[in-house]
Amino acid sequence: MLTVTLNAALDVTYHVPALTPGAAHRVSRVDERAGGKGVNVARLLHTLGVPVVATGLAGGACGTRIRSLLAQEGVPETFAPIEAESRRTVVVAAPDSTTGFWEPGPTITPDEWDAFRTRFTDLVRDAAAVVLSGSLPLGVPADAYRVLIEAARRAGTWTVLDSSGQALRHGLRADPDLVKPNADELADLLGCAPPRPAAALEAVRGLDAPTVVASFGPDGLLAVTGEGAWRAYVPQPVAGNPTGAGDACVAALTSGLIRQRPWPERLAEAVALSAAAVRAPVAGSVDLSDYRRLRRDVIVKEL
Amino acid sequence: MLTVTLNAALDVTYHVPALTPGAAHRVSRVDERAGGKGVNVARLLHTLGVPVVATGLAGGACGTRIRSLLAQEGVPETFAPIEAESRRTVVVAAPDSTTGFWEPGPTITPDEWDAFRTRFTDLVRDAAAVVLSGSLPLGVPADAYRVLIEAARRAGTWTVLDSSGQALRHGLRADPDLVKPNADELADLLGCAPPRPAAALEAVRGLDAPTVVASFGPDGLLAVTGEGAWRAYVPQPVAGNPTGAGDACVAALTSGLIRQRPWPERLAEAVALSAAAVRAPVAGSVDLSDYRRLRRDVIVKEL
Repeated sequence: MLTVTLNAALDVTYHVPALTPGAAHRVSRVDERAGGKGVNVARLLHTLGVPVVATGLAGGACGTRIRSLLAQEGVPETFAPIEAESRRTVVVAAPDSTTGFWEPGPTITPDEWDAFRTRFTDLVRDAAAVVLSGSLPLGVPADAYRVLIEAARRAGTWTVLDSSGQALRHGLRADPDLVKPNADELADLLGCAPPRPAAALEAVRGLDAPTVVASFGPDGLLAVTGEGAWRAYVPQPVAGNPTGAGDACVAALTSGLIRQRPWPERLAEAVALSAAAVRAPVAGSVDLSDYRRLRRDVIVKEL
Repeated sequence: MLTVTLNAALDVTYHVPALTPGAAHRVSRVDERAGGKGVNVARLLHTLGVPVVATGLAGGACGTRIRSLLAQEGVPETFAPIEAESRRTVVVAAPDSTTGFWEPGPTITPDEWDAFRTRFTDLVRDAAAVVLSGSLPLGVPADAYRVLIEAARRAGTWTVLDSSGQALRHGLRADPDLVKPNADELADLLGCAPPRPAAALEAVRGLDAPTVVASFGPDGLLAVTGEGAWRAYVPQPVAGNPTGAGDACVAALTSGLIRQRPWPERLAEAVALSAAAVRAPVAGSVDLSDYRRLRRDVIVKEL
């Protein structure tokens, strides 16, 4: 399995007793993690025991740190180097608030993009599936995901797309095998307000994509596939941090895709892994025993 | 000239339109600079055209970035590597507030400290003066500055100390040639409330240090030396950012020390360079023509 993160990030969390604008804060603890949606998918696949390689673009001191943190976690990576610094995300975690700062990120040169495409074409030949996740950095063409999906198809590799805005729209034109929008991304694609899962079925059918699994947060998943349509959800409320739940969903769906499991089973795994990610104390990680317990609670209904 | 920064920092500034606790912020611009007080002194000496080498401890991806930023500025450096990540300081600059986050910083191993001492002993032989600035990272002994000042004295090199708390207290025992406390550090040494410059003369004499130049922000400097005592200040108010003004003061005083200029001249240069640093749009940088203009305004009075 291959994951692609064109806008990899160094995720930094500062723990502070309180956040006071205008004050100087001594940070009591710093957590650092390799981030970006594709990196998170790679980490979750690695946790599930699925062989995976993370690729994408990473540069500068932040890029070096991203790669060394992945190595510490044992997640294989082969990021293409870029001249500019990869972005950081800084989250200031206080007991009563969580405040985020997203850096604008690097600009990629045409030569760097060409070199990545060559690397991707080599890597994708050896992968059963490729997951393309997240935003595009400046300098990468808007139709980057379309180009990569077409290269993957030529190599006979399944493609999973999880992005937003123009990057998603362009990628859809290449008919990825699976696309996973959330409610906001679906609304953006359809040009409407974020729909409820019950109301979304006809709209999703209208997207003209081979397979769509749309995620609705606590309301679970809606899957529209060539073999049928389903809803899947955990009946009880799941408390925690929703950051990374979408990446968990993609990891489980991709694992189910390469094993060609029946759809109800894939969806149950995706809902359970997402819920386990919500409940995990560190965003984007999962407790596998919690995942297995939640797996038994998932309700899947054919529509 | 040699500057020592045992707790070097990567200074990161995030420009945002507003800071709202609990919100996610897209950072519109990121500025990065090599930091830590000794690094700032080295940059200012370099701006003044004084040959300087910056040393200290730097590690991890942040350490690499600190060194490459110094190289971009043309400031020669020879930092000793450490295993842990050097600290970042993150300043969130909004139009109506400036909010800082100080990371706790690395822990130094005994072997790393030993290796630095060896490096320092080699470097200090070739330097006319050494500036020891800032806080000590965890793992470095509390009497680190005393040890380094004694090594510098054996090499016949002048020593300038600008630190605080226990690090300053221990360093003073080795009789540095010049010590530059600010009002808070002086108060801490004397065990009293921060004094006004007029009231501080007797207290500073009581410190039993060869030469003390105490800085009082807009109230200027008080110098107590073997050749006499002086006050020096700019009569007009100076608006701007006081961050880095103390480092500018140390840079000018050290430059005057190695040139053995008369004290009134050294103090006038130190006051003018501090004021120019306050007025500079980027903390810790100076406009040399502004410095020369301010130099003419400084008032120096023998006490």
